[in-house]
Amino acid sequence: MTNTTTIPTSLNFRDDCLEILNQQKLPHEIEYLKLSSLNEFYDAIVTLKVRGAPAIGITAAYGLAMTMNQHQTVNLSEFILEFRQVKEYLYSSRPTAVNLGWALDSLEKAIEKAKSVNEAKTTLLHTAIQLHTEDEVICRQIGEYGLELLKDKSTIMTICNAGSIATSKYGTALAPFHLGSEKGKNFDVYACETRPVLQGSRLTTWELLQSGVNVTLIADSMAAHTIKEKKVEAVIVGADRIAANGDTANKIGTSMLAILCQFHTIPFYVAAPSSTFDLTLPSGTSIPIEERAPEELTEINGVRIAPQGTQVYNPAFDVTANELISGIITEKGVIYPSYEENIGRMISGG
Amino acid sequence: MTNTTTIPTSLNFRDDCLEILNQQKLPHEIEYLKLSSLNEFYDAIVTLKVRGAPAIGITAAYGLAMTMNQHQTVNLSEFILEFRQVKEYLYSSRPTAVNLGWALDSLEKAIEKAKSVNEAKTTLLHTAIQLHTEDEVICRQIGEYGLELLKDKSTIMTICNAGSIATSKYGTALAPFHLGSEKGKNFDVYACETRPVLQGSRLTTWELLQSGVNVTLIADSMAAHTIKEKKVEAVIVGADRIAANGDTANKIGTSMLAILCQFHTIPFYVAAPSSTFDLTLPSGTSIPIEERAPEELTEINGVRIAPQGTQVYNPAFDVTANELISGIITEKGVIYPSYEENIGRMISGG
Repeated sequence: MTNTTTIPTSLNFRDDCLEILNQQKLPHEIEYLKLSSLNEFYDAIVTLKVRGAPAIGITAAYGLAMTMNQHQTVNLSEFILEFRQVKEYLYSSRPTAVNLGWALDSLEKAIEKAKSVNEAKTTLLHTAIQLHTEDEVICRQIGEYGLELLKDKSTIMTICNAGSIATSKYGTALAPFHLGSEKGKNFDVYACETRPVLQGSRLTTWELLQSGVNVTLIADSMAAHTIKEKKVEAVIVGADRIAANGDTANKIGTSMLAILCQFHTIPFYVAAPSSTFDLTLPSGTSIPIEERAPEELTEINGVRIAPQGTQVYNPAFDVTANELISGIITEKGVIYPSYEENIGRMISGG
Repeated sequence: MTNTTTIPTSLNFRDDCLEILNQQKLPHEIEYLKLSSLNEFYDAIVTLKVRGAPAIGITAAYGLAMTMNQHQTVNLSEFILEFRQVKEYLYSSRPTAVNLGWALDSLEKAIEKAKSVNEAKTTLLHTAIQLHTEDEVICRQIGEYGLELLKDKSTIMTICNAGSIATSKYGTALAPFHLGSEKGKNFDVYACETRPVLQGSRLTTWELLQSGVNVTLIADSMAAHTIKEKKVEAVIVGADRIAANGDTANKIGTSMLAILCQFHTIPFYVAAPSSTFDLTLPSGTSIPIEERAPEELTEINGVRIAPQGTQVYNPAFDVTANELISGIITEKGVIYPSYEENIGRMISGG
């Protein structure tokens, strides 16, 4: 059984707008928003209607290209000046997202040699579409390599939503499940709910239900017990940043899963495009860990849980040491230890 | 600085009623309820206004004693018959709580030799008061032994609420912190929020704030990162049932913490009264793990989180293998490995 129609996507380019799936309303409402003005693009990113580093980058690229397409001038210098201002504005929407800057820079590079405003406008739109299309190819390839590692009918655990709606399509950690669904391969997936923002509960369950994957929700604290009792055979997660030695920053809770995998002697895989590697960082110790608002823990749905005056520690990410990682699944292939050497070879071609 | 007045307690015996702290309204409202009729006692237990195995046992004992005290008869046989019916009714309120049955049985044993209804009535009340008082002594002693293990000014992590309000006073896992507060010893305590029911977020933070302990709330998934980054020196947890070999059933998430302690080479302690040992069980594999309603994960505060149709696995407890436990702190002293031998010696006197 193959079925390619039910893997949800969050971004659809139309001639006059970008349609995005409003992730703030998921899973209870499937609402697509049409973005065409600069402010609509900016607002969609800032208010997390679109999320996931690749999806944010693609959205911003469309925003920049479409805004400039509407710009009324035939003077190329004036056009470039305006381009840079719009680019800065969009960049400021989520300055920490690596892919956002990378995507916007790609557009700037693309129009370096443009000889007219019309040529620049066409190039910008083409480049945005290309980034969008390439990301799907990259994610699909990650899914292919993932499927080579994960046995058909096996039981796999994941955390957060490194999913189709966080990318062009397929996702990274979830790519093998979606692609498996297309190819008639079946997995039993345990999705950690992913406190405090509950991306696992709200998004991963919804995504995998859409593409017919057998998904079961657990609380993050149930991971150890579930790995043992449900005979989980591997854990697969996404990544926000990977250092040159393979140390991986990802959603808080990831390093816990990696330690549990070592204890239960099952593999722990990271799935990420090669753009996630930050080879300027020798190890994960220099990756800054963002701390978020205490209200993410003290309140749920706007209702107070913890008493007033409660101190909170709320790191959004953690770093998993390279020795706990069995393999890093990229679009270029699976990278195995020793990571210093193999990341250098496969990612930077060094 | 010593301060004995601020450790919260959940049970106060008055001549005409038992006053209980309504744990359903914590931490936002401090409401004491007066229980005097059988139905009030039964309802308080069923609806979780009182929780924690020792606190439930003591409440049920008072409920049985006070109900029988109001019974109008001078015929001892008739009194005993009525006693057994009331006992069965109270027992049915939470049939899985071990301490509930143990406390009610203690009352039945106490009146075996009563020669009159009046003597039986007096004995029942005395026995209930005795259970209540003894539990505080037991918890205080657990706290004393705990304080010998935990260094002053150290950073400790806990899960759930093995606290003062789950017992007569002081609690089990939290006893060293409350007692330390009385004695001028300081700890930095990280409280795991304890999904899905959030006892850590709602109760442990509140309790420790009351007695002046420096407590910080984290999500359960943050435990690994916090142990590393905040240099946690030990984890201490309560227990629901301990097998003859030391395998320990406790709130889901406990076995995860034990594995993280082994990985980070810090001690993992269980704190529990000797009544928590079930020496009829050779190991933890035969401890039944209760699975609770899926809504505990799919809804929070009555608001739906996960999509309709989401499968859920919701085990309320897990079993921590004895080899992961550094010591079991009881009122009789700290039990160290090898557990088969030392539990036999210290608990059953074998």
